[in-house]
Formats: sequence, structure tokens, C-alpha cells
Amino acid sequence: MAGSLRVMVESIKPSVDGGRFAIKRLEGETVKVTCDAFADGHDVVVAALLYKGAKDKEWNEVRMQALGNDHWEAAFTVSQLGFYLYTVEAWIDHFITWQNGFRKKMEVGQAPDLELLIGATLIDEAVSRAKPAEARRLAQIAKLMREGPLLQDKLGAGLSDELTRLMARNPDRSEASKHLPELRARVEPVKAGFSTWYELFPRSWSNEAGKHGTFKDVEKKLPAIRNMGFDVLYFPPIHPIGEEKRKGKNNSLIAGPFDPGSPWAIGSKLGGHTAIHPQLGNLKDFKQLVKKARDLDMEIALDFAIQCAPDHPWVKEHPEWFNWRPDGTVQYAENPPKRYEDVLPINFETKHWKSLWEELKSIVDHWITQGVRIFRVDNPHTKAFPFWEWLIEEIHKKNPDIIFLAEAFTRPRLMYRLGKIGFTQSYSYFTWRNTKTEFIEYINELTQTEVKEFYRPNFWPNTPDILMPGLQHGGRPAFIMRYVLAATLSGNCGIYGPAFELLWNEAHPGKEEYTNNEKYEIRSWNWDAPGNLKDFLTLMNGIRNDHSSLQSMDEIGFYYIDNDQLLAYLRRSPDGKDALLVIVNLDPYNAQSGWVQVPCQELGLNETGYEAHDLLSGSRYTWQGT
Amino acid sequence: MAGSLRVMVESIKPSVDGGRFAIKRLEGETVKVTCDAFADGHDVVVAALLYKGAKDKEWNEVRMQALGNDHWEAAFTVSQLGFYLYTVEAWIDHFITWQNGFRKKMEVGQAPDLELLIGATLIDEAVSRAKPAEARRLAQIAKLMREGPLLQDKLGAGLSDELTRLMARNPDRSEASKHLPELRARVEPVKAGFSTWYELFPRSWSNEAGKHGTFKDVEKKLPAIRNMGFDVLYFPPIHPIGEEKRKGKNNSLIAGPFDPGSPWAIGSKLGGHTAIHPQLGNLKDFKQLVKKARDLDMEIALDFAIQCAPDHPWVKEHPEWFNWRPDGTVQYAENPPKRYEDVLPINFETKHWKSLWEELKSIVDHWITQGVRIFRVDNPHTKAFPFWEWLIEEIHKKNPDIIFLAEAFTRPRLMYRLGKIGFTQSYSYFTWRNTKTEFIEYINELTQTEVKEFYRPNFWPNTPDILMPGLQHGGRPAFIMRYVLAATLSGNCGIYGPAFELLWNEAHPGKEEYTNNEKYEIRSWNWDAPGNLKDFLTLMNGIRNDHSSLQSMDEIGFYYIDNDQLLAYLRRSPDGKDALLVIVNLDPYNAQSGWVQVPCQELGLNETGYEAHDLLSGSRYTWQGT
Repeated sequence: MAGSLRVMVESIKPSVDGGRFAIKRLEGETVKVTCDAFADGHDVVVAALLYKGAKDKEWNEVRMQALGNDHWEAAFTVSQLGFYLYTVEAWIDHFITWQNGFRKKMEVGQAPDLELLIGATLIDEAVSRAKPAEARRLAQIAKLMREGPLLQDKLGAGLSDELTRLMARNPDRSEASKHLPELRARVEPVKAGFSTWYELFPRSWSNEAGKHGTFKDVEKKLPAIRNMGFDVLYFPPIHPIGEEKRKGKNNSLIAGPFDPGSPWAIGSKLGGHTAIHPQLGNLKDFKQLVKKARDLDMEIALDFAIQCAPDHPWVKEHPEWFNWRPDGTVQYAENPPKRYEDVLPINFETKHWKSLWEELKSIVDHWITQGVRIFRVDNPHTKAFPFWEWLIEEIHKKNPDIIFLAEAFTRPRLMYRLGKIGFTQSYSYFTWRNTKTEFIEYINELTQTEVKEFYRPNFWPNTPDILMPGLQHGGRPAFIMRYVLAATLSGNCGIYGPAFELLWNEAHPGKEEYTNNEKYEIRSWNWDAPGNLKDFLTLMNGIRNDHSSLQSMDEIGFYYIDNDQLLAYLRRSPDGKDALLVIVNLDPYNAQSGWVQVPCQELGLNETGYEAHDLLSGSRYTWQGT
Repeated sequence: MAGSLRVMVESIKPSVDGGRFAIKRLEGETVKVTCDAFADGHDVVVAALLYKGAKDKEWNEVRMQALGNDHWEAAFTVSQLGFYLYTVEAWIDHFITWQNGFRKKMEVGQAPDLELLIGATLIDEAVSRAKPAEARRLAQIAKLMREGPLLQDKLGAGLSDELTRLMARNPDRSEASKHLPELRARVEPVKAGFSTWYELFPRSWSNEAGKHGTFKDVEKKLPAIRNMGFDVLYFPPIHPIGEEKRKGKNNSLIAGPFDPGSPWAIGSKLGGHTAIHPQLGNLKDFKQLVKKARDLDMEIALDFAIQCAPDHPWVKEHPEWFNWRPDGTVQYAENPPKRYEDVLPINFETKHWKSLWEELKSIVDHWITQGVRIFRVDNPHTKAFPFWEWLIEEIHKKNPDIIFLAEAFTRPRLMYRLGKIGFTQSYSYFTWRNTKTEFIEYINELTQTEVKEFYRPNFWPNTPDILMPGLQHGGRPAFIMRYVLAATLSGNCGIYGPAFELLWNEAHPGKEEYTNNEKYEIRSWNWDAPGNLKDFLTLMNGIRNDHSSLQSMDEIGFYYIDNDQLLAYLRRSPDGKDALLVIVNLDPYNAQSGWVQVPCQELGLNETGYEAHDLLSGSRYTWQGT
């Protein structure tokens, strides 16, 4: 410790858990940094924000603005993917301190000569720090202050803007205090913050009932899905499905001879996590699908589910990664009294965790090599957190654009920890938020607290695992309402289709689950069933694509509306150029009406009359008042 | 990093700036610690609070209580002065996990045999960790579970309370996660939180007008001050006063031949910070005064002002600690355009800061050796923060009971930083809080935010430097009102006397300062002036001494009263045994009345009628309603 460092730097924001974790930003976004910086006494403090790409050698620097009360602010833009480092350095500027004092002293008529000498001495020191041209000029000024024939010129030189500027460019930072630890920002592609997902089981996408669908079948339907406005196509695991202990329809214990099994029971004699289930096609088919999708500006997202069917090759090759019971059998997954005999969990407490981690990373690397840029991670909260932190950091070292979506529906601390340790996007509690109060509270938690620095939600009205009561009973209006909410409250949203657009709502009685779940059987869809939501989804996603205000979660302001069934919020783009007022009827059974408080002044609207354009119906209304 | 550590420990509270600084507690107080702790998956997590005195080898431990949602709580008591360390360790309890699952499985009739074997294996492992007696018993139970003749006995053994208890005493903590950094608590004497200060200039305390007062004069008046209820007697610097550039009355530039100078212009040919101004007496007199005070349960607090008169011995002995100007003269203190020619500041940026720090510490050590336990530090915010942090920590290593009061009236971040780096008590903004809203806001900031963990205010209605407008114009009622506020809102308070109890209110016009300030002259007091507040102070301080609710800032709850000139608050002691309702009229000019909301239920009062005892007037009233 250098005891002579007099400047304190405190409370740098944004930071997550005191710098233990990185904040998140999208490529091109701005990081507005604030801190407190101060010194003892009355000397003038100057603070600079330092930032750089994690691999860069040199810091970039921007002087911070003093906001009063020792609070400072500056910003930098993150223009490249990967990690940035940032921190604050602050120091006492003895020259400015002198100059301010000198000015005050001259105003009250104190004697100038000794003061001029003190100032000139400070300039001498800057001469030794400055580049030649500036050094010469500074020396001239110091000489003038010492020896100038006219007092007026000497005073003028000491107070001149030129001197102030030259001295600001050549400060004495030998006693500067730099805040440690340096903080990190994880910079991710724009798609990390704005993506529209469509989940499908390829095996159900043949046009022929009962025939196993293939990558090629999906390939044919890519344009239709893209036309609906989706840009991420997510598949459940595409690997060989275990045959031992395979589950039958509706998760029954015994599979029939033609039951296809759950795609999440990964691995068989045909291979494990890097193999492809033969009935879907081969690697060439898959790579072609990825390419075709990319031609349409879509990405294929794969499922990364770290678990094994009992006949997964690892069970024999790496028994050290599993739990073995005293009778010599391997432990299957269970959450007592529930049993999942077709799935073996991995033992993350194994002494051989290093080889396990490397093998798991090699799977992700493998699929990246095949062209995959997005992974939906199955139940990450049931695998060790340190592993994910390591994996995502390792992957991002070479491929900082890779997106990981955490499919975790669990307790809040675990959800947030996954965001902190690097998951790009996360499933959320949106699915269980129903009332106006619930939405306002939840959105405020996500966008108005430090949660926004590390947790980027993805809002899903349905998934193969979740058919919420509202969709079971609310009919078509409920589906529309839930999608409008998802699509306008979050930059990232998604549906499980075609179940969603075909309004599938058959649930296990008393449960939030589909009956005849596609996880355990091949379904045949009536693709053009009447009342389907394809046109609505096309329209709604089109609005998302047209309006930058819907492409992030930066600005969501709730406004008063005098009806508890109506939720009103204003979305604005960070640059202020786009704004949308969204009003959602939370009651799928009845039309509702109410008076909304419109922030006319903020929107530059004339209160005496303005046009409201309903983007969904196309209608235009003349509204007035605020 | 051990990748197999699956438990995460987050958000330990209380902590200051993520553990950078210690929290503060008083001897005998409790530290209630909360944290989040969780693991991936469904395994049972157990958390323990670890704590110890900083010098102890072994951790003490208390199991934390799960509050739900991965939030945990436990508490420990700090029974010795100095630093404590505390942190949380958490681990997965595979036995409890097994036992819970086993119970559920048995309830639904799953096969028991393999489960019993798994449980017995976990017990085997505990046998190797347990002490002999417990190991033997555990081995018996495991054997019973494996080989018992009756299924019922085997099941019973696996689920028995005895086994649960034995296993909880012998957990497998090889994969436990300990939160780092360990956090620190600074434990200080009870007086750090409850003290009543009286500041006086000994030189004005002779009974003979114009005669320089002495320690012996003060000694005679100790009982009277103690009778008023004060237990800390604080003196401005008692060191030789500089003769060079000495200031005259009212801070005039030229001192007359009999002007005594400011005690803060420390040092002359007679000595520096370890010497005593001869006119006050000698070291023997001082030590006798300290002893007499302690006999009365009072402490003498000395002023520690790090600055020098121009004739302080250091200027010649240690020129390297001062700022020198180009003309070879030493820089005096200034805050342009103000100049303080009689005071030289120390240059904390000196390359010789180590020798400077040691010398300053030796001063504190010197006075501790003479019996001083309390230091009021003059303007600590104009000396380097790292110095104070080092000094206080060093002093507390040998003498953890030493109290440092920061006399800083400056910007908020500096005030709070001084608290964080170790000052026991701090001057506060109380002096400039006047309205009901201001008091409620300020007290809530001090007691309801993390500020309470590191900043312990001391409320002063007046000081030799500050005569606030309310006291200038409000007369006797204003003095009483300000003292009631100070004495009932803060565990620590103080006055500058006898100016206060004699209602001295002569100010420089337009300034918050006394005219004919005692800093620059010896004053002669009319000790028994009519209307003096001695009886009131005796009564008010007596109430403080009698009511533990007033001896900390732990519980201050404001209650509604329908008059903005009236401030009502309930004080309660941490143990709930003492409670006082305080109602203060903030208007010194008029009587005010209002209806107050009394928390009858909380206080166990019968709303239909209860007695209100006015402790100041002695009157008793029958109140009713809430």
C-alpha cells in the first residue's frame, strides 16, 4: 500500500456482487458508469473511466463528469464481442487546485509573485511529462509567469485556457488511485437481447401421419416459420434415444415396440451427445438445415441436456461420472418419490470432474463446429454452477457470440445465479404471472433493480412441459393475450409450436402439463386448423421487427388505467426514436374498457387531439387528454 | 478451484462494501447474519455460521436456520473487544437427502432393501469421522439396517431421531463451500454507543476573571459536571500554543501581548503534541485529573489535531513533512481566499509518510499511556484516509477500547468513509436538521440503511465552531428543544459548555459562529446566570441514564402527529423492556398541540385509558385511543 494515495474511489456501478460477476451488454450498447471519488481536504479531484477489451493491452480513457457530492459519471461503448474490463482512476490535480486558489486570491487582491512561482513550479513538472511540442509551450508559459515584464501578462498566463488545457493533458498521475478489482462487462451479440424462438419436435413434422419427421421435412417448412417472424428454431435433443428403460406414451413405464421415447433420454448403442438420431437424418442433413436457416436469417438452437439413457456409451466408458449403488447398479434420476428410470444423472461431485468438464465442453465445441451458435440448456440448475461458469467462459474465449439459454424453472436465487455465471438468456416466471400487480412487480424487478445487469429473460407462453391454466381454459383470446404480453414485455420470447398457434390446450386434469405429450410420442398436426394464430403471430412479430422499442427491455413504464383487467405500458427505444403504448386485456373472457393516462408531454403529443393507431386491428382513433 | 464444490454462498449480511470494511458492534451485542446458500438440484443443503475473535485459532459455529427461498439466518454474540471474523460455510448433506427420500419412498411402498444399503453406506462413512462412542453406535445402526431380522426395525433405525442427530453431528464437510472473504466486526466498548459529552476550554474555568484556568480548576468542577449527567469531558488541544503568527481575539491577524492564541495552533519552543501547555498545569496534574474523572465514572477526551503552529518543533526537525514554497517558506493552511497563518498543515503526500505515520501514532500511544481512552479527532477529513484506517487498526490491536470521535463536518461520502475506516463516533448533520421531514429522513438514513453498520453519530446542538440560527434566535426553548432532540435521537450526544447551559447566543452577524469566540480568548463565565439549563440537563441526562431505550439508536419509530411542528417518535430498547414516547415541539416560539397516533397495541396499552407520564414536567395525564 502506498500511504500517500489520497483519493478514494467507491461504489462503482454497474457492478454485480462487488465485481464477482460481469455485467451484460449487447454489442454497440453503452455502459454508463458512476462512482464516488473524493480525497481528504479541499484539493481538486479528477476522475477517469478506464476501459478496454479484455485482450487489449492499452486502456482507453474518458474523463468523468462531476455530478456533485463526489459522485461521478462517464460512459463507454462496447463495440466488440467478449469481455471488457472497466474501472475508475482518480487523482488530485494540484495544478487546478493551485489555479482555482490563485484566481480567488487575485480577486481579493492578495500578493501575486509567490503564487506565480508556485504555479510555474507545477508547470515545470508537467514539462517533464509532456511531449516535446507541448513541453516547449509549457516552458514558455512558466518562464512568462516567472519573468514576464508586465504583471497583467503573468496573471493572464497563469489563468489562461491554453495553460489549463495543456496541464489537463499532462497531469501528474503518480499518486492516482485505481479502483480494484477491475470490473467486467460481457458483451454479446444483438440477438442475445432480441430473439423470437420457435420450438418444435422435428419428428412430428413430416406431412404424413405416423411417419417419423426428418431434418429435411423441417427444411421445407423453414420459410413458413420465418414468415411468421421467428428467427430461432429450437429442437429438443437430436441424439440417439436410449432403448433401455424407454418410456412409453404419457411417460408410462413400459414403452411399446413403436414408441419413440423421450429425446431427453440421450444415448444408445448408436452414440451419445455428438451423434444424431438416425431417423432424423444424418450430419450432412443437419448442416444443410443450419445453412438454409441461416440463409433465411434464422439460427438453429440445439438442446444441451447433460444426462444419459442407461445405454449411453459413457455408462461403460466413463462409469466414474455416474453414481453407483451398493448393489452395483447405476443410480437413475429421481426426485422422491418420482423416478425417471430412463435417465441417468451425471455425478458432478465426481473426483474426475476435470475429465467430465472437458468432455462436456467438447460436445459444445463439436456442435459449434457444425454451425450451431445457440444452445438451449436443459435444467442447468441441476448441474453444478461452477461447471457452467467455467464452460461458458471457455466457450466465449473462442466464440463470444454463442448464446446459452438457461431452461431453469426453479427458485429465484438459482435462476439469478445462472444469469450471473454467464447464461445469455433465461427462462422466467412470466409463465406464472397473471394479474396486473404481478406483472408490474415482476417487470420492475427485472428492469429496475440490479437484476437487469445480469439476467436477460426469455418469455414463453407455453413449452412442452408447461400448459398454464390460462391457456387451458381461456381459449384463443388467452393465447393471443399471452403472446402479446411475451412479445411486448421482453426482447426475447418464444413458443412451442405448432401446439401454440394451433391452440392446443388438452391438459392432464389438475396439472399444468399437456396430455399425450409430444415428448413421448410422435404427433400429427392439423397444420391449417381453423382459428389458428399464424396470421396473428406474423402480425405481432412483424410489429416487434418494426419497432426498436420492443427489441430490448430497457424502457418499460407502466401507466395508470382505471381497470384492473387492463395493463398499460409504454415501450421506448433507448435512442428515444420509437415508442409504443401497449394496452393488454388480461381477461380472456370479456371485453374490457378503461381510461388510460397517456404521457402526452413525454411523447410530444398534443393533448387536445392525437391519433391512436391500433397496430393489431389497424384501426385509427382520435384520442384526447392525458 | 475445486470444481466439485456444489454449494453457493451469496449475499452475506451485514457487510460493508462487500467486506472491504468491518461492521461495528458494541460489546455484548448480537450480530444477526443472513445469507443465501443453495446448491444445484434437489439435495439438502446445510449452512453454518462461523465466527471467532480475530486472534482465536478455532472457529465457533452455529447452524443456520433456513428461512425459505434459500435464505438463511443465525446470530452470534460479540463478548470481547476488538475484531471478530465471521463467514458462512455450507454443504450438501447426503445423509439427510437420503433420509428424506427414503421416508417418501417408504410412504409410497417402494422396495426398501437397496435403499437401506445406500443409507448404511453413508453411515459407514460417518463412522470414520465420528469419535469412538458415536462411531460405535453408528456402526451398530448401520449393521442393523443391513442385517436386522425385522424389516420394521431396519426402517425404524434408518428414520430414527437418534440416527438423524448422530449424523448431523458428523457431517461430511469435505466438499463444503466457505464464503470468502471472511467478514469483520469491530467490537467496541458500550461507551462507544452511549456517551454524553461536555466540551470545555480549561483556560476559562478559573473562578477569577482574567486568570488562566488550570486542570486543577477543572478538577474542582468535575462533580458538578458529572451531576449534570455528563460522562465524557472533552478538552480542546492542551499542548503549548504557538507564538509565531498567533491570532488575536476574534481570529484577528495580530495578537496582542496577552492574547492566549488558539489551542489548535499547536506547538512552540515549549514542545509539540506530547507536551502540555504550562499554564494549564503539568503532566502530573493532568494524570490526576484523568484519575479523578475516572473515579466519577467519567473519561477525559483529548483533541487530536494534526497540524502545527509555525514554531512547532517538527518544522525544524521534520521539514520533510511540510509543504515548502519556492521562496523557501513553509506553506500555511488556507482555503482560498481564506488564510490560517498560525497553522501549518501536514503534507500527507510526503515520500516520508511512513515516518510521519509512526510519529503520529506515537502521540496517540503517549496519551493512552497517560490514561486517555477517548480522542476527539480534529478535522480528520483533511488528512489522508489511509492514514486513519491504519492508525485506528494499529491502536486497536493493543487497545481495542479506545474511542475516536471524528470531528468532520463535510460532504456525505467523506463523513461515511471516516466511519467505515474505523472512527468510533462521528459528528453529524443533526446540527443542520430543523424540520420534521428533515429529522425523519435523516434518522431513517442513519438507522434504516446500511449506514447503521458503520456510522455511529454523535449529536451536538452547539460546538465552539457552530452556533446554529435556531439557538441564536430561539432563546431558552430552542436550547431545550435541541438538547431533547440530541439526547433522545442518538445514543451519543454532547454540548459545548458552559456556553450551552448559560444560553450564550451572541453570533457574528449573518454567520453560524459565536462572536468573541473562546478559541481566541479566555472567557469569564457567569456560572449561575438566571435561567441556566443545569437543572434541565441534569433531568434530561438522568432520563437517558434511566432508560435503556435512549442508550442506542437501534429502534426509532416515527409516529403520526397531526401538526408539522410536532415530532413524535417511539424509542425502544433492543430487549423490548424499555420504551419511551418522545414528542418534541420544533417551534421555540409557540406552544403547539396535536393528536398523536400512539402504538397502543405494540406497547401493550389499553386503548380505553392509560397514563401518560411526562418525564420532563413530572405531570401525569390520562390518555385514550390510539
